Amino acid sequence: MDVLSIIGIILGFTAIIGGNYLEGGHIDALINLPAAIIVLGGTIGAVTLQTPWHGLQRSMSMLVWVLSPPRVAFRSGIDKVVGWAQSARKEGLLGLEALADTEADLFARKGLQLLVDGNEPETIRNVMEVESGLIEQRDVDAARFYEAMGGYAPTVGIIGAVMGLIHVMGNLSDPSKLGPGIAVAFVATIYGVGFANLIFIPIGSKLKDCVRNEAKFRDLIIEGLISIADGENPRAIELKLSGYLR
Amino acid sequence: MDVLSIIGIILGFTAIIGGNYLEGGHIDALINLPAAIIVLGGTIGAVTLQTPWHGLQRSMSMLVWVLSPPRVAFRSGIDKVVGWAQSARKEGLLGLEALADTEADLFARKGLQLLVDGNEPETIRNVMEVESGLIEQRDVDAARFYEAMGGYAPTVGIIGAVMGLIHVMGNLSDPSKLGPGIAVAFVATIYGVGFANLIFIPIGSKLKDCVRNEAKFRDLIIEGLISIADGENPRAIELKLSGYLR
Amino acid sequence: MDVLSIIGIILGFTAIIGGNYLEGGHIDALINLPAAIIVLGGTIGAVTLQTPWHGLQRSMSMLVWVLSPPRVAFRSGIDKVVGWAQSARKEGLLGLEALADTEADLFARKGLQLLVDGNEPETIRNVMEVESGLIEQRDVDAARFYEAMGGYAPTVGIIGAVMGLIHVMGNLSDPSKLGPGIAVAFVATIYGVGFANLIFIPIGSKLKDCVRNEAKFRDLIIEGLISIADGENPRAIELKLSGYLR
Amino acid sequence: MDVLSIIGIILGFTAIIGGNYLEGGHIDALINLPAAIIVLGGTIGAVTLQTPWHGLQRSMSMLVWVLSPPRVAFRSGIDKVVGWAQSARKEGLLGLEALADTEADLFARKGLQLLVDGNEPETIRNVMEVESGLIEQRDVDAARFYEAMGGYAPTVGIIGAVMGLIHVMGNLSDPSKLGPGIAVAFVATIYGVGFANLIFIPIGSKLKDCVRNEAKFRDLIIEGLISIADGENPRAIELKLSGYLR
Amino acid sequence: MDVLSIIGIILGFTAIIGGNYLEGGHIDALINLPAAIIVLGGTIGAVTLQTPWHGLQRSMSMLVWVLSPPRVAFRSGIDKVVGWAQSARKEGLLGLEALADTEADLFARKGLQLLVDGNEPETIRNVMEVESGLIEQRDVDAARFYEAMGGYAPTVGIIGAVMGLIHVMGNLSDPSKLGPGIAVAFVATIYGVGFANLIFIPIGSKLKDCVRNEAKFRDLIIEGLISIADGENPRAIELKLSGYLR
Repeated sequence: MDVLSIIGIILGFTAIIGGNYLEGGHIDALINLPAAIIVLGGTIGAVTLQTPWHGLQRSMSMLVWVLSPPRVAFRSGIDKVVGWAQSARKEGLLGLEALADTEADLFARKGLQLLVDGNEPETIRNVMEVESGLIEQRDVDAARFYEAMGGYAPTVGIIGAVMGLIHVMGNLSDPSKLGPGIAVAFVATIYGVGFANLIFIPIGSKLKDCVRNEAKFRDLIIEGLISIADGENPRAIELKLSGYLR
Repeated sequence: MDVLSIIGIILGFTAIIGGNYLEGGHIDALINLPAAIIVLGGTIGAVTLQTPWHGLQRSMSMLVWVLSPPRVAFRSGIDKVVGWAQSARKEGLLGLEALADTEADLFARKGLQLLVDGNEPETIRNVMEVESGLIEQRDVDAARFYEAMGGYAPTVGIIGAVMGLIHVMGNLSDPSKLGPGIAVAFVATIYGVGFANLIFIPIGSKLKDCVRNEAKFRDLIIEGLISIADGENPRAIELKLSGYLR
Repeated sequence: MDVLSIIGIILGFTAIIGGNYLEGGHIDALINLPAAIIVLGGTIGAVTLQTPWHGLQRSMSMLVWVLSPPRVAFRSGIDKVVGWAQSARKEGLLGLEALADTEADLFARKGLQLLVDGNEPETIRNVMEVESGLIEQRDVDAARFYEAMGGYAPTVGIIGAVMGLIHVMGNLSDPSKLGPGIAVAFVATIYGVGFANLIFIPIGSKLKDCVRNEAKFRDLIIEGLISIADGENPRAIELKLSGYLR
Repeated sequence: MDVLSIIGIILGFTAIIGGNYLEGGHIDALINLPAAIIVLGGTIGAVTLQTPWHGLQRSMSMLVWVLSPPRVAFRSGIDKVVGWAQSARKEGLLGLEALADTEADLFARKGLQLLVDGNEPETIRNVMEVESGLIEQRDVDAARFYEAMGGYAPTVGIIGAVMGLIHVMGNLSDPSKLGPGIAVAFVATIYGVGFANLIFIPIGSKLKDCVRNEAKFRDLIIEGLISIADGENPRAIELKLSGYLR
Repeated sequence: MDVLSIIGIILGFTAIIGGNYLEGGHIDALINLPAAIIVLGGTIGAVTLQTPWHGLQRSMSMLVWVLSPPRVAFRSGIDKVVGWAQSARKEGLLGLEALADTEADLFARKGLQLLVDGNEPETIRNVMEVESGLIEQRDVDAARFYEAMGGYAPTVGIIGAVMGLIHVMGNLSDPSKLGPGIAVAFVATIYGVGFANLIFIPIGSKLKDCVRNEAKFRDLIIEGLISIADGENPRAIELKLSGYLR
């Protein structure tokens, strides 16, 4: 459970609504259904047009990471690699075959399989780096989905505001209608800038951090497997991989 | 047929026009021929000036990908490569000659040809990577055509708006003409920002995704052909290429 | 003759001036000498300050490419390389000596010279890639000159507009002078945004495309010369280079 | 103690507040608690949502570098490496074992350990470059925390300003309330732009400079250790490393 | 003496002030001490906070390059390298020792020293490329100091303008004071945008060009020394290096 995400969202909205209240503003002046329809509908329309189906699915399923990021335990990852190295020492590469069959992490499992099949270290590295790169690219794209929303929302908010102002301009000769009309128009601006900066962009940024962290973990697995393939001893492997704990 | 593209465009425009309607705006206030001429004409003029003839053609022909993206089936691509590897095993590299003649994909065909001609794996890789890179560059440029339109449209919209305001300023002493005049001027802003964010930029983004996907498929073909040239066995090739399914 | 460049410029200006006319604007409201002096003078001043002398010359001489881009014929480039390869086959590397003396393209000539002098393929590649990179850098810089103008023009336009508004503010108590004054001030904005987006930025973009195309042609020459130096047969060289036709 | 940081902050705020005073402005017009709550609360909320827990800690602990940057003495770093090289000459690699145990810098210590364990120079380089890269990535991310604050603050300031304007619009028929209301609304803009440009962005920039400097120092250590592993003589090592003094 | 720099500054300011004069503006409306204090003080404060001491010094000392750029004569650089090559041919590497002692360019001197000490070509290349890269990084950072000023100035100008507007809002009920008040506020905008676009950004851009040019010259020296170390003949070296004259 990532408490910081929840604190961040609550803090942002509380500060803005609370500050507005202290200034004497009414919260109901900030609630406007048509503005919400314009900003969210236009933003979702734009990202739906630009995103392929599988990318949309991945973006949706990654959203859960905001509250519960994937646990990437580098310490236990190193321990696991060292365990593999010890098995390989005692029972030869074939001793890893049983471990490969029970390994839960599909990426590590494929690496062990390549190792057991007796591939060259360079081949293992190439295959695994290509796969790791493709996974990272797919997930970075999925995180950029939210950044794209953060890019579209303010501009769609401007469309909403200008449409509101056009509506207001029809009543320019009646000043008493002018003020409230402009106020409504401005709410679209707030929705666009607010959703983008308090929700979409930070979420995209947090997800990209998770993605990079997982890529780093896969790097650790790759380095470890290559070292085993090179026949290095477990203690040396542990020393080498300890850099990932930083 | 890419249903998401259609949903995205309909959703975006429905939300904006519907939200405006709910706010009490009239849709005919958003229709303005001179503003459309300024924004679309100016934008098309700018991209026509900057794009060479072959690039313009490619951008036009790629537009169909928005509704029907090129089908890039990685699963069947791997199957095809494994089939080649089996032919090469059974009948030697010359067994691939017949396959090369009937291969529909021109890129794969050239690769098979290079293989059959007995080139070194490194040579095959270099030649095919250069070609793949040139295709990708050409197509990324074509996708950027729409991003460029998305960049010019809002600024041309500002030109339209400011020209409208200049016109309005001539009537500043008559407030009854002021409001409608400004309203018309604002429509150019909406057109510029709206076309850019609801159509041009998302289209450019979707096309770039298609281009990257095709480049990834060509990478698969290259890796597969190199593995065949290196004489690897079909099962190992299948395992290696399985990373592209992610 | 690049007709698209001319169509682009005419289309852009016709659309904007025509649209303004349809809206009821007068073209003489868009003509303002002081605004033109401010925007063009300020923009040229900024790029003159930032550009060294040789860069300014190159930018000027490259301007002709907008109307008549350098013809880079990849088909005949490949034919030429294949011709060299055949000479090298028949008469040895020394057979290329006569060709080097008559070659019009200075870059290709130097490559042939390096080949005739019996340099290692790696040396030829290094020397020619360094030179090609330096030419490309010089020309990209020259193309960026126009992009820089496109960056400065709108901000200088804002300076012109704000200076105009300051002037107007002195007459705030006389509404009849207010409107026309603001109108004049706005023209500077239009000039800044318009010159940037309808002329400078598209020109910079088109020139960069030309530069990249020439770099690609030099790549073709380099790859071809290396293949000749490696003693490959003309048909294989033709197949390898055919990727540049994409 | 980095006096420039303190001078910079004082100079920036003195100039702005002093200039405002000379123009006839009152400083109390610039003090507004609700605006501060909106801008700082919204900004902190956004960065809290996007930053993982360990990143937040690192960003906080690096803040002290603004006033007292990590002392990275390249001269004494070179002297230390030369000292190691002399020990290695006289007493062999094992002579470095005692030095490794007493070395305070953890990064250098690990490098010495890898050297004493008799690893290949290439292995030492790989392991240490991976670790150095990970440290740099972590610290660059922490410095970007402040840049992100500098990105969010102005947009949150706009939210505050627009909310203030909405509030003002309710009193549009009473001009005497209009002016002060708008004034309060503008303070949020000043806070957003001011905090970002006078504090957050410069701090992020200074921290990134510190991070790059430390990475450069680790490069020096790596190059030095590799030279020792390659058995080069101390004088040659000193000449080689002297480039880091620039 | 770089006449273009002087012409650029004079042209920019003359055009803007002259254009304003033609429009009927008074130059004294553009002179405002508090606005200058705010914009320059705030900008200098921000860059002082973000720049370390040695970077500030380098930025200051590089400012002279705007008027008198470092003379980087590629023709005479090539001649010098060819001279070294001839000495090396006739008198062996030791013949270069005397030249190393009298060489004025410290970078070239170090390279000759490394050559005379009998280092491997790869070692010489590594050491010199690291040093050249560090010098370039230091100088690019120093040039970016002015770009940073160009980034801060307009935003600080906005702070000045908004503070001015706040001041004006207190007098909203008295229209005769409104106009001049807003005019003064706008001057801060002009100063921010003007200093940035007519001075700071172009200077940063010109300095970066000088820095790249010097880096290119050091590349020439490195390539030349490596060729001498490889024992190539002076004529071949001259041909190879001639690419730097483009």
